Amino acid sequence: MIDRLIKQIVKTQNPTVAGLDPKLSFVPEFIKAEAFEKHGVNLKGAAKALLTFNKGLIDALCDIVPAIKPQCAYYEMYGYHGVKTLYKTIEYAKKRGMMVITDGKRNDIGTTMEAYATAHLGTLGIGGETVEPFGGDALTVNGYLGSDGIKPLLKICKEQDKGIFVLVKTSNPSSGELQDRLIDGKPVYQIMGEMCEAWGNDLIGQYGYNSVGAVVGATYPKQLEELRGKLPHTFFLVPGYGAQGGGAADVAGAFDNRGLGAIVNSSRGIMCAYQKEDCPETDYANAARREALRMKEDILSQTGTIRLV
Amino acid sequence: MIDRLIKQIVKTQNPTVAGLDPKLSFVPEFIKAEAFEKHGVNLKGAAKALLTFNKGLIDALCDIVPAIKPQCAYYEMYGYHGVKTLYKTIEYAKKRGMMVITDGKRNDIGTTMEAYATAHLGTLGIGGETVEPFGGDALTVNGYLGSDGIKPLLKICKEQDKGIFVLVKTSNPSSGELQDRLIDGKPVYQIMGEMCEAWGNDLIGQYGYNSVGAVVGATYPKQLEELRGKLPHTFFLVPGYGAQGGGAADVAGAFDNRGLGAIVNSSRGIMCAYQKEDCPETDYANAARREALRMKEDILSQTGTIRLV
Repeated sequence: MIDRLIKQIVKTQNPTVAGLDPKLSFVPEFIKAEAFEKHGVNLKGAAKALLTFNKGLIDALCDIVPAIKPQCAYYEMYGYHGVKTLYKTIEYAKKRGMMVITDGKRNDIGTTMEAYATAHLGTLGIGGETVEPFGGDALTVNGYLGSDGIKPLLKICKEQDKGIFVLVKTSNPSSGELQDRLIDGKPVYQIMGEMCEAWGNDLIGQYGYNSVGAVVGATYPKQLEELRGKLPHTFFLVPGYGAQGGGAADVAGAFDNRGLGAIVNSSRGIMCAYQKEDCPETDYANAARREALRMKEDILSQTGTIRLV
Repeated sequence: MIDRLIKQIVKTQNPTVAGLDPKLSFVPEFIKAEAFEKHGVNLKGAAKALLTFNKGLIDALCDIVPAIKPQCAYYEMYGYHGVKTLYKTIEYAKKRGMMVITDGKRNDIGTTMEAYATAHLGTLGIGGETVEPFGGDALTVNGYLGSDGIKPLLKICKEQDKGIFVLVKTSNPSSGELQDRLIDGKPVYQIMGEMCEAWGNDLIGQYGYNSVGAVVGATYPKQLEELRGKLPHTFFLVPGYGAQGGGAADVAGAFDNRGLGAIVNSSRGIMCAYQKEDCPETDYANAARREALRMKEDILSQTGTIRLV
């Protein structure tokens, strides 16, 4: 997975990912009106509106942004209809050539974690046919349960060229309550990061990074830079840019001297660009594209041209 | 939530919960054949088979077991059709008078965690109507992100009489990799447990327990007993009985002197009782009931009659 992602980043010269976390309040009125008229003012109508919104964003971003990151919570909030929209969003993004990092922060053990791995990254055989339940390229996961929660994913990552991003140092203000506490002189986030390096040991790609990545927030630039030094094979997924307060200078330390090593997420900044610009809502997808291009240039001002070697 | 759960436990004299983690291989052939014939040999057919299986189990258990615990992973594995089965399973269990602990181990921050809270415990207003996306009574969550990941749930817990169970000491062999590490001389699981006591401080019910519970595995009886002493207001959800190796003596330390303080889960033991008994598969629901009654007596042999005072 990580080599595919790196190639997409180099091709688009854009180390960012568009978070698709659609709330109904983000969706332009004309899209909602049409979906509610056609499908009813209910969860199904809402879910269809989200899908139309997402497809417009994907169309506007697919040639300039390497990947989307749909956040499961916002789909589950609209019930099983919303979860169908998650599936259809992933399917559409892949069709348009984008990679998909499913942000589920899933965690469990043994056969249950295998079930999550199958659901979000793998395939299932039913009656002689092989189907993809959701079909993402990578999944965010939470490592609190230790290796039993991660190892069931590694087999699918290896066999089907998929990847995971493990929560290491999250972007929120209270992340330090546990993650900054010291164990034998080392913060918990560093111990988790070192576990990522170990878990990914067998999944190192041709550019030196492995398919077990880490989530490290843009809101902690010092730790981001420190972890870049300590975890040389771990690719970072970096939330917290934009709405949460992180800027380009804050994420600079996440990159190596090729401009590789991290992909920075923006969700509301891109999805709601039309509200911030105050342009006509029919122009929402173009506004998203303008913001994505602005963000790309902002990050590239720190990394320079991104190179494979 | 916790008072409702405690009353159900006392009424049924049964401090156990039936884990509904259905894999297709657990479902009797006659159920699969009918579902596949009617809906096709595909994810929809599979999901319909799981629902029929679950409904049979709920019918057989609803007067003797206080709650079900559906594990989200096994529903997501069957795509959005599987997630519809999760919704329908929850709806049916509530209709039959059971409580529902949705086992999703969800975790995120801020508005995203609010979205999970709305999805699994709350309600959503659409076009003047209020709908429940999934409608569980309680949700399992992972506290690695700190208070920002838990506080968004507490409002819904308070306003809508719902609850959460936070992962503290999980039942798997590698849980100690992080959870047993010492911070200022205290293991991580104890720190997480103490955070549960603090988070639940405003949600204490009339029997002394609060609606922020903790997940503590039956496979660690010593820690279970230790935490019972240290976390006097925290109700425990105890996995690991049966298939994972825990027995009645192992969970004894989770209970207070009224027989309250914990609810013990069994998933495969109950769901697959017919396979273990080797009885006709048409008798699967009765076999589940026999196993649930056996498990109840097994646990009650440790607690004695369960009392409110």
